[in-house]
Amino acid sequence: MNKSTPSDLLAALRWRYATKQFDPSRHIPADVWNALEESLVLTPSSFGLQPWKFIVVRDPAVRERLKLESWNQPQATDASHFVVLAARCDLGEGDIDGWIQCLAEVQGQPVENFARLKGMIVGFAETMSHESRHAWNVRQTYIALGQLMAAAAMLGIDTCPMEGISTAAYDRILGLEGGGHATAVACALGYRAADDKYAEMPKARYPRERVIHRIG
Amino acid sequence: MNKSTPSDLLAALRWRYATKQFDPSRHIPADVWNALEESLVLTPSSFGLQPWKFIVVRDPAVRERLKLESWNQPQATDASHFVVLAARCDLGEGDIDGWIQCLAEVQGQPVENFARLKGMIVGFAETMSHESRHAWNVRQTYIALGQLMAAAAMLGIDTCPMEGISTAAYDRILGLEGGGHATAVACALGYRAADDKYAEMPKARYPRERVIHRIG
Repeated sequence: MNKSTPSDLLAALRWRYATKQFDPSRHIPADVWNALEESLVLTPSSFGLQPWKFIVVRDPAVRERLKLESWNQPQATDASHFVVLAARCDLGEGDIDGWIQCLAEVQGQPVENFARLKGMIVGFAETMSHESRHAWNVRQTYIALGQLMAAAAMLGIDTCPMEGISTAAYDRILGLEGGGHATAVACALGYRAADDKYAEMPKARYPRERVIHRIG
Repeated sequence: MNKSTPSDLLAALRWRYATKQFDPSRHIPADVWNALEESLVLTPSSFGLQPWKFIVVRDPAVRERLKLESWNQPQATDASHFVVLAARCDLGEGDIDGWIQCLAEVQGQPVENFARLKGMIVGFAETMSHESRHAWNVRQTYIALGQLMAAAAMLGIDTCPMEGISTAAYDRILGLEGGGHATAVACALGYRAADDKYAEMPKARYPRERVIHRIG
């Protein structure tokens, strides 16, 4: 494995910014996009449950409709790719059984060997209300968002996370209603436009002393 | 900037797994740790508000106490580094003013120039209840978690995200109570032990067709 150096990593993370204007003429090459989709698939999640769907929207007409539900932000239509991260609305025994089944197959073991793990997950999920389980799943999609944006930066791909969206309208437009998943957040990916003035602004972050605390 | 290749990125993301046994004798070198702390600082957040604190716990006695509040999982004590990601409990006008102040300084502009942005953030935050604003902030810390784990994998550092923790006990042990931030999630970082059997297990993920959907 070719590791990155600390300085390459930091150069990538400093290069990235929430791109406001994408260059609509530039398209992410297939091999790069494939790696970004795979980074979504590989995202770590609580107990490995992967309580999500990632909807890659290419249809320009659908993206136009999503833009209207995104405060008209042009990223929804102008970026090379647009992904909607949707979270499972609940997490029940069926989800857990499905995951144990997958795990058993991959590891070539009978599902019975996972009885203890299943009990642990069921016990964890049972302590929560329906709403809390949905919120838990939504948080998992934010791990995916974080990994996706970091991965994209390492590959020289620009991103813009989009929280200012009408999730209910997204659900309707994407046909998610009643399907057990709901829109959590979206992310536009592509290449910054040459004239996006935000690209040149100095990155603003609180000083490290303010956000990092040390004990011991 | 030295970009990564798609195959290097995927090799890193496939190499990572939720490490169960860390090698307690191996310590992350200072330059690598510095880059990981900086990746936390650089994490993107909604409106750039950075509603978080990251607590790096080195004190072995404190880590021992945290372990007791983490289902006794050995990662809390054995990993080279242990970070607790804490979220702001609310988000009020003071937080927004503080952020606008920082932005104005970095960009060398008067705060008045950011009046429209401030109005937008206040408007966004006002639509939420106290609880929703806390949940919003917690979600932001999961972006940090996702970026941190991806960055660590690129640098060849193992991680284990830890959700199965008693956040209230963590708050007490870390002295967070009453300070405006609360524990959201934790992450252990370091090097896998040679005998961690989980390292050799095949990675289990749902097939791509199940999690990625395409429209258009």
